[in-house]
Amino acid sequence: MEQRILGLDPGLAVVGFGAIICPKLEQTPATLLDFGVIKTSSDLDIGERLNIIYEDLHTLIQQWQPDLVAIEKLFFYRMGNTIAVAQARGVLMLVLAQHKLPIVEFTPAQIKQALTGMGNADKYDVQQSVARELNLDYIPKPDDAADALAVALTAWFDRAA
Amino acid sequence: MEQRILGLDPGLAVVGFGAIICPKLEQTPATLLDFGVIKTSSDLDIGERLNIIYEDLHTLIQQWQPDLVAIEKLFFYRMGNTIAVAQARGVLMLVLAQHKLPIVEFTPAQIKQALTGMGNADKYDVQQSVARELNLDYIPKPDDAADALAVALTAWFDRAA
Repeated sequence: MEQRILGLDPGLAVVGFGAIICPKLEQTPATLLDFGVIKTSSDLDIGERLNIIYEDLHTLIQQWQPDLVAIEKLFFYRMGNTIAVAQARGVLMLVLAQHKLPIVEFTPAQIKQALTGMGNADKYDVQQSVARELNLDYIPKPDDAADALAVALTAWFDRAA
Repeated sequence: MEQRILGLDPGLAVVGFGAIICPKLEQTPATLLDFGVIKTSSDLDIGERLNIIYEDLHTLIQQWQPDLVAIEKLFFYRMGNTIAVAQARGVLMLVLAQHKLPIVEFTPAQIKQALTGMGNADKYDVQQSVARELNLDYIPKPDDAADALAVALTAWFDRAA
């Protein structure tokens, strides 16, 4: 049975998303459904920004009806930014729970490893691999959307393995 | 005009809350409405825990109809815990925005300063001051609820000043 996977790259200013359909067998390529970003303006209050993320993720889930959601794990990479990103990620996790969706989480290193075979691959290598896996003749943009497709593909490889 | 202030002490395992009615003039003591905690079990998934916080805060707001919400600012005090607390705080900020409630934020030092006159006061001094300001003959428990009352009182002092 094929499976719809929604990938999410958490953020407050930008949440990347990417939806794919994965065949049961890894030999057959996955199919791209949609990718893009939820953007929130820094002119808005934090609560208003979180509410945009809340509403837009509900809409995306209703639209693409994923069977599984893959989301990037958060670390203390960018100190000043981490609390803002974590607050936004809390809202994403809330919405996923409200839809009772199963979730898998991967670290950036796990995603790089899954897509390129190297845990320290650079962004461009990962993006090339996303395009190749989805049979695209272009790199999905912006980076946050490509990152979301990368985590969705990681979830597929992980389950197909 | 008197004002209802809801104080919140963010957390994932425990969210402290405290609701007070504040008279217009600082000479008259504030009145306690309610205090307590929203607890979420670590046996649950993060999303389920966030959803309990989401639902319970909606219920509290409907019950106490605050005019203003005061919430503690988050810092990188407890590194391992900060992402979990920030994710929960994002859900609190979301719910407050959904009710279009005005928010004021204070750092722990600002709260200590407002309640005791010393930015480095200890927890017991702050709790004693909370009891005194609200004319209570007991210390509100648990600590998270007392902290929530402390931030609510800080908001009142701040506006009365």
